[in-house]
Amino acid sequence: MNEGVIMVVSGPAGSGKGTVCKMLYASGDFCPSVSRTTRDPRPGEVDGVDYSFVSREEFLRLLAEGDFLEYNSYCGQFYGTPKSAAERIIASGKNLLLEIDVNGAKQVKEKCPNAVLVMLLPPSFAEQERRLRYRGTETEELIQKRLEQTREELKSLSVYDYIVYNPTGETERALENIRAIAAAERCSLDRRASAAEDYFANKN
Amino acid sequence: MNEGVIMVVSGPAGSGKGTVCKMLYASGDFCPSVSRTTRDPRPGEVDGVDYSFVSREEFLRLLAEGDFLEYNSYCGQFYGTPKSAAERIIASGKNLLLEIDVNGAKQVKEKCPNAVLVMLLPPSFAEQERRLRYRGTETEELIQKRLEQTREELKSLSVYDYIVYNPTGETERALENIRAIAAAERCSLDRRASAAEDYFANKN
Repeated sequence: MNEGVIMVVSGPAGSGKGTVCKMLYASGDFCPSVSRTTRDPRPGEVDGVDYSFVSREEFLRLLAEGDFLEYNSYCGQFYGTPKSAAERIIASGKNLLLEIDVNGAKQVKEKCPNAVLVMLLPPSFAEQERRLRYRGTETEELIQKRLEQTREELKSLSVYDYIVYNPTGETERALENIRAIAAAERCSLDRRASAAEDYFANKN
Repeated sequence: MNEGVIMVVSGPAGSGKGTVCKMLYASGDFCPSVSRTTRDPRPGEVDGVDYSFVSREEFLRLLAEGDFLEYNSYCGQFYGTPKSAAERIIASGKNLLLEIDVNGAKQVKEKCPNAVLVMLLPPSFAEQERRLRYRGTETEELIQKRLEQTREELKSLSVYDYIVYNPTGETERALENIRAIAAAERCSLDRRASAAEDYFANKN
């Protein structure tokens, strides 16, 4: 059994990233990561399932120990992806899927050059704008902010390894592409530096 | 419709390469290439289907023009993979599959750095040897020669991008991995240098 992959999926508002990741978790092809956070649990949230709730002191200690693939702060609270748990998951042969933004993706790639970064995109910027208007949950100001954010984030597109487009009504194809990327990466020679030695030593 | 991939599949004797490639052609996922050769057609061979039969003069002219992805000579005759035909196939969005050896694979990668090189392997060297004996069509001397050839060829394993193992009874999984590699490569950012520009220009 070879190692699983750490896959990051990012995507702008309207890319369908949330739905796609939920479907990938539900199908059992990818494991989620349980983030650590310093914020208080909300009603119904379970420690170790929704988040791993830790004190600020504990978070900073784990950060000093290097046990984060990425972290960030939001509204004065820390959030981060545990490194040791991620390593246990991929060592067991499972794939890990992290749904994080461009800033987090860059941190993951730095900590773990083997991580596979996927950008999920609507078929076009015009379609993204259409989707944001269509869902009707955001003010015009917020829509403009999200579009501006997309322009900003896609300046870093080159840190990603793959782009998967998610046209309306073709979610299944986007899922297939993401599964194909994980399967292909597991065959990548970059992950099998000792492949020839193992072959002659009958080690597979 | 984005461009297809040029995929090379190599594999030592006993890897199951012939069967795997036949199945990939038959499923329509990959197009074959019609090789050019200077040798005479055998009874039943159709020009433009089995081979494109050309004179030695014509072969050398096309070689001078650079219209080969790779070529070699065998028993005094030339064989080669036409470049222009390969480019037409991938431009139409189809994937091209070339079943060639390590020497040819290196030539293809040089001519076309975007080409995807896949090494198909039995699960181990011991299993390869077992398969060669089991089929009982080769003399002991030829078996030893094939195994020595494998040792030699796998010294160049690092030019390949992917390794796919083909354990006995798991051909379907090997096929799936090869299909996944083609699908993933089509999502690769390396093939979409202008992805961000295209996105904002609504060009996809």
